[in-house]
Amino acid sequence: MTSEDLAEDLQNADLESTPELEQLYADFAAAHLAPLWTQASEVLTFHPRSDAVPFVWRWNELYPLAARSGDLVPVGRGGERRAIALANPGLGGAPYATPTIWAAIQYLGPRETAPEHRHAQNAFRFVVEGEGVWTVVNGDPVAMRRGDFLLTPGWNFHGHHNDTDAPMAWIDGLDVPLSDHIDIGFFEYGTERVTDEASPDISRSERLWAYPGLRPLSGLDDRVSSPIAAYRWEYTDRAVAEQLLLEDEGHPATVEQGHAAIRYVNPTTGGDVMPTLRAEFHRLRAGTSTPSRHEVGSSVWQVFEGRGAFVVDGVRHEMDKGDLVVVPSWIPWSIEAETEFDLFRFNDGPVIERLGFARTHVVGR
Amino acid sequence: MTSEDLAEDLQNADLESTPELEQLYADFAAAHLAPLWTQASEVLTFHPRSDAVPFVWRWNELYPLAARSGDLVPVGRGGERRAIALANPGLGGAPYATPTIWAAIQYLGPRETAPEHRHAQNAFRFVVEGEGVWTVVNGDPVAMRRGDFLLTPGWNFHGHHNDTDAPMAWIDGLDVPLSDHIDIGFFEYGTERVTDEASPDISRSERLWAYPGLRPLSGLDDRVSSPIAAYRWEYTDRAVAEQLLLEDEGHPATVEQGHAAIRYVNPTTGGDVMPTLRAEFHRLRAGTSTPSRHEVGSSVWQVFEGRGAFVVDGVRHEMDKGDLVVVPSWIPWSIEAETEFDLFRFNDGPVIERLGFARTHVVGR
Amino acid sequence: MTSEDLAEDLQNADLESTPELEQLYADFAAAHLAPLWTQASEVLTFHPRSDAVPFVWRWNELYPLAARSGDLVPVGRGGERRAIALANPGLGGAPYATPTIWAAIQYLGPRETAPEHRHAQNAFRFVVEGEGVWTVVNGDPVAMRRGDFLLTPGWNFHGHHNDTDAPMAWIDGLDVPLSDHIDIGFFEYGTERVTDEASPDISRSERLWAYPGLRPLSGLDDRVSSPIAAYRWEYTDRAVAEQLLLEDEGHPATVEQGHAAIRYVNPTTGGDVMPTLRAEFHRLRAGTSTPSRHEVGSSVWQVFEGRGAFVVDGVRHEMDKGDLVVVPSWIPWSIEAETEFDLFRFNDGPVIERLGFARTHVVGR
Amino acid sequence: MTSEDLAEDLQNADLESTPELEQLYADFAAAHLAPLWTQASEVLTFHPRSDAVPFVWRWNELYPLAARSGDLVPVGRGGERRAIALANPGLGGAPYATPTIWAAIQYLGPRETAPEHRHAQNAFRFVVEGEGVWTVVNGDPVAMRRGDFLLTPGWNFHGHHNDTDAPMAWIDGLDVPLSDHIDIGFFEYGTERVTDEASPDISRSERLWAYPGLRPLSGLDDRVSSPIAAYRWEYTDRAVAEQLLLEDEGHPATVEQGHAAIRYVNPTTGGDVMPTLRAEFHRLRAGTSTPSRHEVGSSVWQVFEGRGAFVVDGVRHEMDKGDLVVVPSWIPWSIEAETEFDLFRFNDGPVIERLGFARTHVVGR
Repeated sequence: MTSEDLAEDLQNADLESTPELEQLYADFAAAHLAPLWTQASEVLTFHPRSDAVPFVWRWNELYPLAARSGDLVPVGRGGERRAIALANPGLGGAPYATPTIWAAIQYLGPRETAPEHRHAQNAFRFVVEGEGVWTVVNGDPVAMRRGDFLLTPGWNFHGHHNDTDAPMAWIDGLDVPLSDHIDIGFFEYGTERVTDEASPDISRSERLWAYPGLRPLSGLDDRVSSPIAAYRWEYTDRAVAEQLLLEDEGHPATVEQGHAAIRYVNPTTGGDVMPTLRAEFHRLRAGTSTPSRHEVGSSVWQVFEGRGAFVVDGVRHEMDKGDLVVVPSWIPWSIEAETEFDLFRFNDGPVIERLGFARTHVVGR
Repeated sequence: MTSEDLAEDLQNADLESTPELEQLYADFAAAHLAPLWTQASEVLTFHPRSDAVPFVWRWNELYPLAARSGDLVPVGRGGERRAIALANPGLGGAPYATPTIWAAIQYLGPRETAPEHRHAQNAFRFVVEGEGVWTVVNGDPVAMRRGDFLLTPGWNFHGHHNDTDAPMAWIDGLDVPLSDHIDIGFFEYGTERVTDEASPDISRSERLWAYPGLRPLSGLDDRVSSPIAAYRWEYTDRAVAEQLLLEDEGHPATVEQGHAAIRYVNPTTGGDVMPTLRAEFHRLRAGTSTPSRHEVGSSVWQVFEGRGAFVVDGVRHEMDKGDLVVVPSWIPWSIEAETEFDLFRFNDGPVIERLGFARTHVVGR
Repeated sequence: MTSEDLAEDLQNADLESTPELEQLYADFAAAHLAPLWTQASEVLTFHPRSDAVPFVWRWNELYPLAARSGDLVPVGRGGERRAIALANPGLGGAPYATPTIWAAIQYLGPRETAPEHRHAQNAFRFVVEGEGVWTVVNGDPVAMRRGDFLLTPGWNFHGHHNDTDAPMAWIDGLDVPLSDHIDIGFFEYGTERVTDEASPDISRSERLWAYPGLRPLSGLDDRVSSPIAAYRWEYTDRAVAEQLLLEDEGHPATVEQGHAAIRYVNPTTGGDVMPTLRAEFHRLRAGTSTPSRHEVGSSVWQVFEGRGAFVVDGVRHEMDKGDLVVVPSWIPWSIEAETEFDLFRFNDGPVIERLGFARTHVVGR
Repeated sequence: MTSEDLAEDLQNADLESTPELEQLYADFAAAHLAPLWTQASEVLTFHPRSDAVPFVWRWNELYPLAARSGDLVPVGRGGERRAIALANPGLGGAPYATPTIWAAIQYLGPRETAPEHRHAQNAFRFVVEGEGVWTVVNGDPVAMRRGDFLLTPGWNFHGHHNDTDAPMAWIDGLDVPLSDHIDIGFFEYGTERVTDEASPDISRSERLWAYPGLRPLSGLDDRVSSPIAAYRWEYTDRAVAEQLLLEDEGHPATVEQGHAAIRYVNPTTGGDVMPTLRAEFHRLRAGTSTPSRHEVGSSVWQVFEGRGAFVVDGVRHEMDKGDLVVVPSWIPWSIEAETEFDLFRFNDGPVIERLGFARTHVVGR
């Protein structure tokens, strides 16, 4: 039975109008009450039906627009960031990529600084190209370079400054749409400039935490979010490359034939980097196609390198370097890699799993 | 610094309009993009600012309206339930008590049956008066009586039937607003009639699970939600009564002087009964006042017995038996008990805590 | 291949004696070193081979001996308790029922008091007959009655006093053999008399904690051990009785056909009552036989009511009310119930599971 | 009050001998019973009093003895390993470093192979000098080099082979004494030769798992033990070096002034590498002294590099490269670093913590 059928049934629930019924409905409205039976079809659906729609944003459109705002819009207190958010066409103009995820391109011109602040919302950055900006998280300067995944967990002060004469742009991901919906937002101003303008190759957090299977004895308490501020490209690249080599050698390593992937995790728990956001990096061999999957929860993918296609809800989208695609909850998706295809993915997986709602359906299995 | 100040600052972010800027904004809109700097004040607030507002619904208005719908609206497939939801005046007419919580009065006439179905959303019922209805959860008939708290965790088939010649009404609580927002809803029809029309005093789930500190060896796997279908009034009443007696005897037992309370929990984990909903029962001695509290997350309270007042955001509301009040996130609230004051409370605490956003501020501490 | 075979192999490891080899072994000894190869058969076995042996103690022998000590041995500081421990014949006279479990009969004469003390070791008591003693745990008097299971988790002060003119005896269970082996013992004296000589029907801990699925809001922090001082017979009896009734009605409830059982649990976690000791109560219908099981870890069973037999390592032991039998690790055991057969069991299950060593083998499955 | 005092008290428990009492004790013995009151002082101590004693083994004695056994004792099935265990002088000649920990030097001559087997007991190896041996864990060849920490969790097949013309020796650590005491041992033979004689620089497990904060999507299930077979010296060295540099720069990083340390952890949980064994690496600056500590649980330390002293129970032991010292439960210990002092430590911390017995006392705090 399809959702349409339910909608159908639910029409049957619409009663013949009578003066008494009209009066009842009027009295409901006056008393701030709403009957279930007239709107059950929106409240109860046979499967998730998101208002968000699948949509693709092209890097070669995004970047020039960001660059133009670099010329026209100053960065500073009040506006806080020169960030331009993906606004899902299904979400009525709200600056939301999905009902739970904020995704934006942020642009910082030569020598510019985005002032420090902190908020309860969790944030990360992913760099598809460029370098030269340091994000300063609680006073720890973190270099941003192509392929790096960088964290700003909730309530950590952070600012950004461009230490070069070239502009830089990257992707921001936050849980703002979810946070706004459930009303958890706190915000506080920090300094106008970043608190430490040093430009080290790696952050203090990495020097303390970023080792395989080693934990500082001074850091034995578990953390809600990962203490690693930057997950460097060299490790991500090597991890997925080795999975494909191990597959070549006949050992289990990949998610499925030709498809390598890692999840960025919190080393104090082995779980997701932050309580509301999951991030992964995927590498598909040229020619690999994945089966079509339905997943509860919404995702955003960005092409890091290579060329291929996403088939979302039956529609094929050619994707190139930097392009972003949104996959709403339960919309079937699959990937076809034309060349070796490197993809960054983030989603609300931890939210769905922690609340007990996770489901996946692989078509044909 | 207040939120108003931030809004103030953010005005400063509004740039002088120029043709280039207008063109840029137009191009953003055409590309389904939205700049942060023009709306940072809505996206980032100094503290939670819910669209939901504090509001009180009166039992002596709710019940007659429910009774009238009993005469005018049949119960059956399609509409599914004769449930009338509290529609928070701040939420634009949606049938939502808060952004995360659905609360409704459900009414079942003599000998009526609400057909079986199941949904991913979690649900419970609380009975402020009456009896005679059995809710049948996965084939297990569960008697509903005054003071009982009853569970229908996600994806359990359930229907209700009134086994008497008198109508009965009760409160339904669900995570529908959250579930709809994050797009996790699944729904399936069950039988038109309840699958078991027996009317036992207690359910099989209670016979297997409802003992203090005893667990069946056949049920050693932890459950996402509590296996206890009904939490009976006799235990709740005794638990809060004993807390007050222990306080009289000089032993720690109550939350604060004159304020006893229990949380309904999942015996397999000791945690909340369901992953998205928390439920508690509170008893205040006559004359007790609580300090004013800010909490992240939204709550609904219903008066079970007695008379008193809720002071919410500085406004005093006299409350009587059956009355319901909504407290949105971070809105300060306190309680004044005129008589001994028994209160049922439910909220989205597990969501807030599992996602790492919990904060509480007790005014003057 | 059997353990004997390994022993056989290992003989082969014994080398032909030469002066050089003898000198090497002498030099090892002088340097406090021991080679693996001469003793691998004790160090590495094909399956657990406990020094402890299956053994049965008869209540009608235990009780009279306890009573005689009541006449000859005072209770007081220094000796601390009039407890007589089961000394497994395989353990060289140590007062240990198994390598991890201490089990003793404790006897308190009319009006006698056992002084207060506390120790890091975890303890419980189980009452197979009699009443009239209150154990006072951290100042909370806990009545002891037939069928009750009572806790004294590590580092809680406790003493016992007999409030009647009749003697009383019960079973003590502790993790002393394990604790002594891993060297964790701490001990502290309390008062000479119990700190509260009241004789209430139920303890304060029960008044605060012993309700099905209810948790005091003043006790939301998880506890390493259960806060319930007494698990009362009325609930245990009803829980197993209902499992058998549910089985009669055709519903899943029992462990296996005719075999009902509950585990005593910590309501704050749903797990075992204490970190080192597991306790269960089993009821078998008359005529029921269980399959033969091998389990890693050692258990002690006591017959609470009824008549039947334990077949341990192929040897059949008729068991009557109060009789105790020890089942060492991996020794196969099964039960045959002649009448309805009520059994109390305790073991080191939490230790085995928390350390990752749990295995079970059901013969013929 | 000291333990001696308790012993004193307990003498008082010794009653004047009478024929009746002697008869009672004789009857206890005949019935395999043991009274508490005659031996409470051994059963209950004011603080842990281990039979194990502090003791030092010298590498320059250990290694030559191992080399001599290399000439006189073949490696092969039956004896299984050429391992020579530290036999704590307090433990009656048992091959146990402490009541929970087995520590041995294992020696493999040129081109020798130790056959494959598996056992429930958990094992690791630490290399203080040399290289050239590959330990093959479940078919995955793992190179062993100076400073590496290598895992063989319970029930993984493993063998070792020396791929060079030089001998190699290393330290084995196992939970054998604990495992034997609680009777959990299983053992199974594997192949006579190692199943894979390749000699790669790094193991497949490292290629899949050993990246900072990255987890293969094919390995999302948590593991009881770490999936990383080798923790390489280069990371350990860098991690402790960076802690000292961060301390120089004025940032929190070390355990205490001049004392850097890491714990080897399971990346799927952030916890200890195996359920029964903890391993750490410590680096003290020249001239650093630690405060004296009492800890529940027993430890073994080995000097990896540098020169200093351990003060254990008030006795000062000069320690040099490769020397091992045992610290029994609750015996106070401190370290004095003469040069920069690198130390490998392993202990039963996970056992003590999982069973709820952890306590630490820092003298003078």
